[in-house]
Amino acid sequence: MSKLKYGIAIFPSKEIQDVANSYRMRYDPRYNKIPPHITLKERFEASKEEINEIAEELNKIASEVQPFEIEINKVSSFSPVTNTVYLKVEPHDQLSLLNDKMNEGVFPESQQYAFVPHITISQDLSEDEHSDVYGSMRMLTFDLKDTVDRFQLLYQLEDGAWTVFETFKLGK
Amino acid sequence: MSKLKYGIAIFPSKEIQDVANSYRMRYDPRYNKIPPHITLKERFEASKEEINEIAEELNKIASEVQPFEIEINKVSSFSPVTNTVYLKVEPHDQLSLLNDKMNEGVFPESQQYAFVPHITISQDLSEDEHSDVYGSMRMLTFDLKDTVDRFQLLYQLEDGAWTVFETFKLGK
Repeated sequence: MSKLKYGIAIFPSKEIQDVANSYRMRYDPRYNKIPPHITLKERFEASKEEINEIAEELNKIASEVQPFEIEINKVSSFSPVTNTVYLKVEPHDQLSLLNDKMNEGVFPESQQYAFVPHITISQDLSEDEHSDVYGSMRMLTFDLKDTVDRFQLLYQLEDGAWTVFETFKLGK
Repeated sequence: MSKLKYGIAIFPSKEIQDVANSYRMRYDPRYNKIPPHITLKERFEASKEEINEIAEELNKIASEVQPFEIEINKVSSFSPVTNTVYLKVEPHDQLSLLNDKMNEGVFPESQQYAFVPHITISQDLSEDEHSDVYGSMRMLTFDLKDTVDRFQLLYQLEDGAWTVFETFKLGK
């Protein structure tokens, strides 16, 4: 059996997802491929045997990390590296810890840039479109809070959409 | 906190999802709202407290049902009740058992029709479009098999898309 493409992400509360989608539906051509999320581990490939081992490790990681609070106050952009605009998730030790643990040991390397927790709301736009979108959003302020108590292992279908393979609950 | 809308579904293997999507992308306007799935329990509303109780019960149900094989050989339609064309999942005691258990006890009633396990590939078409689509697919044969070893509890966002809340693994 060939390898599938996997990723690991947190889906924030419905409230935060609805806010993100109000922008994504206009500015993110990948809006329909996955609900709004915080990526913990970028896309990687794994065989069935490898993913079973990884899922076991994810169970262990989840059990060692307690649920924690996240906060979103503003919009930011990865420009000029990429034209991605995002809801900035305030840095949090436990987010970084999860990301660290998912890039060592049994996990294949898949991280291209330093870990910056975020929820993408706009991507793949032209330079001009990006400037317009980011220009109109950079002054916005938000007061969004959520308790993160789980993360999800997903795999990608041929059309680019993602399906959840398994949920891992923190502190369990 | 207001109630969210929940549903319970099985995501079949990537292979089956890719086959379903090859039709859904053309014939199902709700294609982008959720990956291809077998609905176990239709949409219902629940508060945070209610869903915690339901999730506990789903853990119990999952632990009591062993993984099982499903088979898809043909396409069928719910016409004239609705213009829905689907991959017919051959009837299976354990699918019916899961569906039964999710419509009693702590679960709110949410089932409109008799339980017919299926993966929707076309819906919300006009009478003429439905006739064309079903006419061109009713003679197709498939030889798709999969082992079902988990199901998912999902909630619906404001835009109609579904996010997975939790995975339940059978026989665990």
